[in-house]
Amino acid sequence: MQLEKYRIEEHNQSLLAAHQRAFAYISGETEGVDNILEKLAAFQVAIPSWALGTGGTRFGRFPAGGEPRNLEEKIEDIGLLHRLNQSSGAISLHIPWDIPSNPSHIKALAAQHGLRFDAMNSNTFQDQPDQALSYKFGSLQNVDKSVRQQAIDHNIEVIRHGIELGSDSLTVWLSDGSCFPGQLNFRKAFQHTLSGLQEIYAALPDNWKMFVEYKAFEPNFYSTTVGDWGQSLLYASKLGPKAYTLVDLGHHLPNANIEQIVALLLMEGKLGGFHFNDSKYGDDDLTVGSIKPYQLFLIFNELVEGMDSRGMNHATDLGWMIDASHNVKDPLEDLLQSVEAIMITYAQALLVDRKKLTEAQLNSDVVTAQEVLQQAFRTDVRALVAEARLRAGGALSPIGMYRAEKVRENLIKERGLKTVATGL
Amino acid sequence: MQLEKYRIEEHNQSLLAAHQRAFAYISGETEGVDNILEKLAAFQVAIPSWALGTGGTRFGRFPAGGEPRNLEEKIEDIGLLHRLNQSSGAISLHIPWDIPSNPSHIKALAAQHGLRFDAMNSNTFQDQPDQALSYKFGSLQNVDKSVRQQAIDHNIEVIRHGIELGSDSLTVWLSDGSCFPGQLNFRKAFQHTLSGLQEIYAALPDNWKMFVEYKAFEPNFYSTTVGDWGQSLLYASKLGPKAYTLVDLGHHLPNANIEQIVALLLMEGKLGGFHFNDSKYGDDDLTVGSIKPYQLFLIFNELVEGMDSRGMNHATDLGWMIDASHNVKDPLEDLLQSVEAIMITYAQALLVDRKKLTEAQLNSDVVTAQEVLQQAFRTDVRALVAEARLRAGGALSPIGMYRAEKVRENLIKERGLKTVATGL
Amino acid sequence: MQLEKYRIEEHNQSLLAAHQRAFAYISGETEGVDNILEKLAAFQVAIPSWALGTGGTRFGRFPAGGEPRNLEEKIEDIGLLHRLNQSSGAISLHIPWDIPSNPSHIKALAAQHGLRFDAMNSNTFQDQPDQALSYKFGSLQNVDKSVRQQAIDHNIEVIRHGIELGSDSLTVWLSDGSCFPGQLNFRKAFQHTLSGLQEIYAALPDNWKMFVEYKAFEPNFYSTTVGDWGQSLLYASKLGPKAYTLVDLGHHLPNANIEQIVALLLMEGKLGGFHFNDSKYGDDDLTVGSIKPYQLFLIFNELVEGMDSRGMNHATDLGWMIDASHNVKDPLEDLLQSVEAIMITYAQALLVDRKKLTEAQLNSDVVTAQEVLQQAFRTDVRALVAEARLRAGGALSPIGMYRAEKVRENLIKERGLKTVATGL
Amino acid sequence: MQLEKYRIEEHNQSLLAAHQRAFAYISGETEGVDNILEKLAAFQVAIPSWALGTGGTRFGRFPAGGEPRNLEEKIEDIGLLHRLNQSSGAISLHIPWDIPSNPSHIKALAAQHGLRFDAMNSNTFQDQPDQALSYKFGSLQNVDKSVRQQAIDHNIEVIRHGIELGSDSLTVWLSDGSCFPGQLNFRKAFQHTLSGLQEIYAALPDNWKMFVEYKAFEPNFYSTTVGDWGQSLLYASKLGPKAYTLVDLGHHLPNANIEQIVALLLMEGKLGGFHFNDSKYGDDDLTVGSIKPYQLFLIFNELVEGMDSRGMNHATDLGWMIDASHNVKDPLEDLLQSVEAIMITYAQALLVDRKKLTEAQLNSDVVTAQEVLQQAFRTDVRALVAEARLRAGGALSPIGMYRAEKVRENLIKERGLKTVATGL
Repeated sequence: MQLEKYRIEEHNQSLLAAHQRAFAYISGETEGVDNILEKLAAFQVAIPSWALGTGGTRFGRFPAGGEPRNLEEKIEDIGLLHRLNQSSGAISLHIPWDIPSNPSHIKALAAQHGLRFDAMNSNTFQDQPDQALSYKFGSLQNVDKSVRQQAIDHNIEVIRHGIELGSDSLTVWLSDGSCFPGQLNFRKAFQHTLSGLQEIYAALPDNWKMFVEYKAFEPNFYSTTVGDWGQSLLYASKLGPKAYTLVDLGHHLPNANIEQIVALLLMEGKLGGFHFNDSKYGDDDLTVGSIKPYQLFLIFNELVEGMDSRGMNHATDLGWMIDASHNVKDPLEDLLQSVEAIMITYAQALLVDRKKLTEAQLNSDVVTAQEVLQQAFRTDVRALVAEARLRAGGALSPIGMYRAEKVRENLIKERGLKTVATGL
Repeated sequence: MQLEKYRIEEHNQSLLAAHQRAFAYISGETEGVDNILEKLAAFQVAIPSWALGTGGTRFGRFPAGGEPRNLEEKIEDIGLLHRLNQSSGAISLHIPWDIPSNPSHIKALAAQHGLRFDAMNSNTFQDQPDQALSYKFGSLQNVDKSVRQQAIDHNIEVIRHGIELGSDSLTVWLSDGSCFPGQLNFRKAFQHTLSGLQEIYAALPDNWKMFVEYKAFEPNFYSTTVGDWGQSLLYASKLGPKAYTLVDLGHHLPNANIEQIVALLLMEGKLGGFHFNDSKYGDDDLTVGSIKPYQLFLIFNELVEGMDSRGMNHATDLGWMIDASHNVKDPLEDLLQSVEAIMITYAQALLVDRKKLTEAQLNSDVVTAQEVLQQAFRTDVRALVAEARLRAGGALSPIGMYRAEKVRENLIKERGLKTVATGL
Repeated sequence: MQLEKYRIEEHNQSLLAAHQRAFAYISGETEGVDNILEKLAAFQVAIPSWALGTGGTRFGRFPAGGEPRNLEEKIEDIGLLHRLNQSSGAISLHIPWDIPSNPSHIKALAAQHGLRFDAMNSNTFQDQPDQALSYKFGSLQNVDKSVRQQAIDHNIEVIRHGIELGSDSLTVWLSDGSCFPGQLNFRKAFQHTLSGLQEIYAALPDNWKMFVEYKAFEPNFYSTTVGDWGQSLLYASKLGPKAYTLVDLGHHLPNANIEQIVALLLMEGKLGGFHFNDSKYGDDDLTVGSIKPYQLFLIFNELVEGMDSRGMNHATDLGWMIDASHNVKDPLEDLLQSVEAIMITYAQALLVDRKKLTEAQLNSDVVTAQEVLQQAFRTDVRALVAEARLRAGGALSPIGMYRAEKVRENLIKERGLKTVATGL
Repeated sequence: MQLEKYRIEEHNQSLLAAHQRAFAYISGETEGVDNILEKLAAFQVAIPSWALGTGGTRFGRFPAGGEPRNLEEKIEDIGLLHRLNQSSGAISLHIPWDIPSNPSHIKALAAQHGLRFDAMNSNTFQDQPDQALSYKFGSLQNVDKSVRQQAIDHNIEVIRHGIELGSDSLTVWLSDGSCFPGQLNFRKAFQHTLSGLQEIYAALPDNWKMFVEYKAFEPNFYSTTVGDWGQSLLYASKLGPKAYTLVDLGHHLPNANIEQIVALLLMEGKLGGFHFNDSKYGDDDLTVGSIKPYQLFLIFNELVEGMDSRGMNHATDLGWMIDASHNVKDPLEDLLQSVEAIMITYAQALLVDRKKLTEAQLNSDVVTAQEVLQQAFRTDVRALVAEARLRAGGALSPIGMYRAEKVRENLIKERGLKTVATGL
């Protein structure tokens, strides 16, 4: 389904007066609005190909219909999101779910939608129908050398597909771990995993990055072999300068201070990328900003501070990606809400008065430090985000327009009610 | 596959000397051994029909082969477990996975294996292929009256099946809840659920019990409509004398003191049944006793104390059931380990010197209170459990014999490698 | 130290232009502004007498100077806060720290500062120098009848003091519990506690309420005898219509859904009062809104919805109190920040479009339900709160004025650097 | 108070028959008993000087009487423990609480009781009465250079005291961190801390070790500057070969897999020492083994495996220390229970059939791996521990004898009821 430019313009027209009032107010109160708008326009969040279908839990899945049936339709869906919000200009593929039969065609199609290929994702946490050996007891950590080799080969194949499409990074998330005490020798599991990662690293093109993602638990419920940022950093340090840690917001123990982890990884030059989502209990994979928006703000606050201190480019020097599941919402609406929450939070972080914050910190003036952060967080920046989107040609209300255009109904008509996208 | 009696005897013969040494020692040091052995013999743990196949997570499932293909084979599998350990003499069915086409045949088959039918389980957390309305947004809590009615009807149908098989209790686990703030009006969700439970309660035969199971989170990740023991007790109290709370060990927030909950529910006369498993992070559904065996002991300590204080029969006045998932172990071996852990822990709880404990409590002598509990917990009671099993005709080492007899290999031969039992 | 009215006016003058711009914008975009301003003006948060000094942890305490040395100075401090924010017009006393030697004088002093006496707090979690028996092993739960009697007598004495001062409620927080398995018989601890509460309840005047506060852990680290809302509700239900549950935000296990608890207690007519604070790990007692402001909003959302559904008066039908500790901030500044966070959040909850939310819920339209809540939460309502304060005669920026007037420096000058207020 | 040798012999005589039966049974079933007894005899756990008095929480403290009034009496108390259990032959001092006025006298006194000086502990988490600058906002992390210098100087002074007494390690536990978002620049806090640690490291004698202890939270409730093993390892790696990580069992987020951390730190050659205690919620500092004895076993299992794989000496190559608080138990009894739990668990870990475990791991035979671990854990090894103690001249039942000799009553007689030992 196509969203014509004039339709977006019509939609925007109907909301323009209210938007202009809001934007006039906030820009009157804010310094450096143009700079903020530029940064917002440049910031793009990759959509993972597996997030376009209804997610589920081990207890069941309740599909919604109209899900993309192939890579082309996934690209179309993300293209549609990007057209609406102008902030989703990248796609993150998953192999083997998204093996492109005709890479140049796929590349052209993505380009047509204004999308680039973000990090490639390998999969050694499931067995594929035609797979020789099972990952039941892990992939790179496996005590069986031939299973490890299969996992290494698979990752190298993923790199190969990525090169063809113009991606320049590989995300390795290993579900490797154990469900019971005694199952693993932790040390040997670490060493096997390191050695496998080293072989994959060796196959990485010079301009590529490798993201080593960590996760505290699930699907293994006793230990995970890349279980926290400390372990990920250990692997990344031993691997070399192209290896980085990837932070997924839902992959921590209860009460973890994620923003401090982010700050320290940036300090070490080892933060590589981000998976956005939100959660209350575990890796709940809920819509970004739906549960703990202030935590998200504190993370962005560290990202902006830490990247600026290293002279990094916000838009390009880290990989930004959503990684969520959509069990009770239309996946496309959920993604629009997630991207909106990210943009709002990024805008708030840009508003933080860094000079005043530093001064408060140097005086151990905790009250003022909090005031500075909350001054930014309590500011209603939605008109800034909307203005950046408007200038880029997007819709003032992406979800409003999505609904007005009956996108889901049209997708169901086109693709059917029973389509099931690959994913979780 | 059948385990002949003489094979068990041969197996036991080979382990007898060592067992007799151990039993001689422990019975020499223990008062009231015969009483303990009788209680152990009487204690039976129900096996749920869905626990006989390989479990999985939302990330995947790694089946092992030889899984039961129908209700008859499920009964055979539990019969085999019971023959080995003489402590698994009950089966807990799940509808619609286990609808018996010929109830009297099924009843006879179970009786042949020495099994009775424990609590029946309904399922309104998944949609079945032929189902009219979806449970995507809950069942009894649903804002749509016709969905609620469908869930009520289903539960009443489950009772009907249970009556035919000689069961006398219904476990209602509702996954109802919400994934996002705002999704539900909590009060109305509670009231709809209560009203639905009341209709189901009205259909309950006089001698039946209804177990209202609670769970903190998953598959809903923001709220659960029967979310903790407080809520379950509220429902059970409003429902009436046949309604009870069911405690599943994995259904709590981190660090919950489950043994205190057990004690209070017993005090209120509202503890109805138990789902055993173990976990480190959430509802991990690991083998009983594999992660926190001391917590299990403390729970059994409260069960014994609390039931004795009300003159309850340990074996029959509460429903005892395993509810676990088997992702990396042979399901039948996992169940043997779980039942063994339960029996060991029950034996330890029976060893607690209650007079001395009460005395210590009355003196606020915390050190002695701990010594009394740990005296029981540190005692190696395995020979007591084995002796009870031996006398009942079971195997001295259920897992040892299971492996020696190559049960799994035989089941795969009989049923094939690709069979998939119904379940999670 | 006194804050003259003309000084407040001068202060306000300097901020008026910016405020008027903000207020003009938000009131132009908001329906029913007058109604909101009235509700904000009526809403008063009680300040506990023990929160006026520097708090501490078991590891130490770092006092700041100028702390109130007696009840009169505590009243003066709260009077000063109230003069600044016009939202702290109540004081919550703690016995024995605040025994008034001359009640009528104290009453007159409070009235002079526009303060009323909120809930009285008893203390059976510490031993006082002149105390006959120790609470080391609990108070109302104690196995020793004479200790229980001492605790009962103390609570009745607290009621007596409260009557003299015009309070009409008693908050009973028991730290009773155990540090080790075996220490307590849970059932008997519950029954002793219930029986003690019943005696205290019997001494309650007809127009009084009793608040039974629960807490998951600390200072006892194995069990707590009023440990969660389920237990508190059980006590309150057995006690009678004057007994209610009190919710302290920091008294839960990790990840608890507090807003659901609030909704259910309101449904049952058993929510009595609130202790505001914030926390990341346990009962951290941090400034309200400093860690999880969205959770606070969701709680207020339930409060408004639930109270409205019962026709309750927001300002008077529940007890609102701050209960925090101030380890690294000036206590008075911390309290100003806390009250401000409460008012902002209350204002946001008043902005929720309830009709649209209900409609979304009835359609299971989860996306819209979230949009409705976040529309309110993302709105910058600070100008509404400031306007209500301005109209009531308070300061546009309470903290700004507090600092400009050098209040702390003056208090240190008046009272000295080494004064230590009673408290934790 | 002195425990004469003949009194111990009399005590042992009365328990000997039962002990011999138990020891005869377990040694008949166990291979390599002599080797195990030797290892048990060699294993000594240091007692911290601050654990000899009653502990407390921020809510209060309930002292028991007879607490040591000075360093000499602390040494006597530990001497008494060691005489009873023969496993507490080391003392860990805390400066400034234990500054020895006459080091050679103190050294001689300790030697007389068979005690050596384990790690020295500095204190920058409290302000001392005569201290120039405050640690309210941290010590080594402080934005004020002179505060940092004061903390550095203090640590160097601690080293000096330790040299005089024959200690050879320094434990640095920093409570540094923040209570509120914005309070700290995480990166600068880390860098200040690292730089301070480097200065202290430079003052370390060649044969000394520095232990960098981490803690997730408390007394700071938003962030901690040495907050987890990853951060501690980062500091230790940057510091050099004499710096190690110290693991305190209570210093983790909920559900952390501590045994995996232990294994990885050993793998990296960076595990330096251990603080034993137990907990359910946070840093509860309960008696070792009183809450999660199986977790303790799993940790010891990794310690034995990991140390053996590096050819380390169990008794001497890591620092073993108790760090607990005693709120409701007699501190000396609590310590006896803690040491006993450690010895039992160490004995169980020595019983693990490593060959069979490795084999099971190499076959991904999870069921057998669990059986191997639980075979050791379920074995009643108390007679092995008692026998080792008996041979070394200790008491068969340390707590039994402690009570029979009325030690506490005697200490109260000697020292008074109101003595308060330094500590928390």
